[in-house]
Amino acid sequence: MITVLRLDHRSGRDARITTHVCLTSRAFMANKVILTGDHDKSVINSVNQVVENWGGDFQIEYSDSYKKVIKQHKKENYEILHLTMYGKPIQETVKELDKTKENKLIIVGGSHVPGDVYEAADWNTSVTTQPHSEVAALATTLHLMNNGKELENTFTDGKLRIIPNNERKKVINNE
Amino acid sequence: MITVLRLDHRSGRDARITTHVCLTSRAFMANKVILTGDHDKSVINSVNQVVENWGGDFQIEYSDSYKKVIKQHKKENYEILHLTMYGKPIQETVKELDKTKENKLIIVGGSHVPGDVYEAADWNTSVTTQPHSEVAALATTLHLMNNGKELENTFTDGKLRIIPNNERKKVINNE
Repeated sequence: MITVLRLDHRSGRDARITTHVCLTSRAFMANKVILTGDHDKSVINSVNQVVENWGGDFQIEYSDSYKKVIKQHKKENYEILHLTMYGKPIQETVKELDKTKENKLIIVGGSHVPGDVYEAADWNTSVTTQPHSEVAALATTLHLMNNGKELENTFTDGKLRIIPNNERKKVINNE
Repeated sequence: MITVLRLDHRSGRDARITTHVCLTSRAFMANKVILTGDHDKSVINSVNQVVENWGGDFQIEYSDSYKKVIKQHKKENYEILHLTMYGKPIQETVKELDKTKENKLIIVGGSHVPGDVYEAADWNTSVTTQPHSEVAALATTLHLMNNGKELENTFTDGKLRIIPNNERKKVINNE
């Protein structure tokens, strides 16, 4: 089980980036995303719409407290990675993950990350140690954790499916 | 030389996503980004500010015509990849790239991608064939093209540099 915790979502301002975080989580084979911050039903609805159309059992939830989410996952023995540009290199972190534990919580920061998130994480870890994008950092982290498996993955139960094609758009509608 | 062409940028609505596209391009070792659509100086300024603070010689330019940009790069013998969820799998495309040619143009779509972009591209190519994020798709594409080199890359001439750290923020200011 891979869960992504998106901190401090702000309606309006963060809507598109948070949606990209959620859809990247799904496409890169995480199982669930939990939003904190504003309870933004439009983001939740649009992610659920993608799941309905494109398949899989990806879940999106809201919590009013990141502290509770972290505490619960610690209790359930999840390994916790916090993505931050200040952290240790992700390529080192991925080697240190316990392969006997399937459960990982990946924390993706918001506008300001409180100190207790750094303390709660087993790894504060960075993709390139340069400023760029939480979406890019999350994609790269999941890609490395998956060994690239997401590139070959298919979701079989969606209404829509793409037939990959070098020339043009080709989509099958199973409805 | 790896250039990223961002199509059809819209001020306001796309500002953050386009900024993430630009910063991901830089952190993942592309050399230049060219924006088309709105001539959004605030995005250009904020990307230039990151380059000034964090180093490297990444360039950002604006063009009033994606057609001109593509034509020019074709003339200069660039291989052209267009990232689209409908395309052939990126892991196949990366194998087909001509390793004797250093010059690649990566086209990242906007809200609507005109048919002539599909026609002009040598590859219309997809990361996972699922809907997610142009930022995630670009990061994964560059990661695969680089063989992960960006994870070890450093920019030596910036004012700011992070000392990667599992515990806390540690930044050196060379000013």
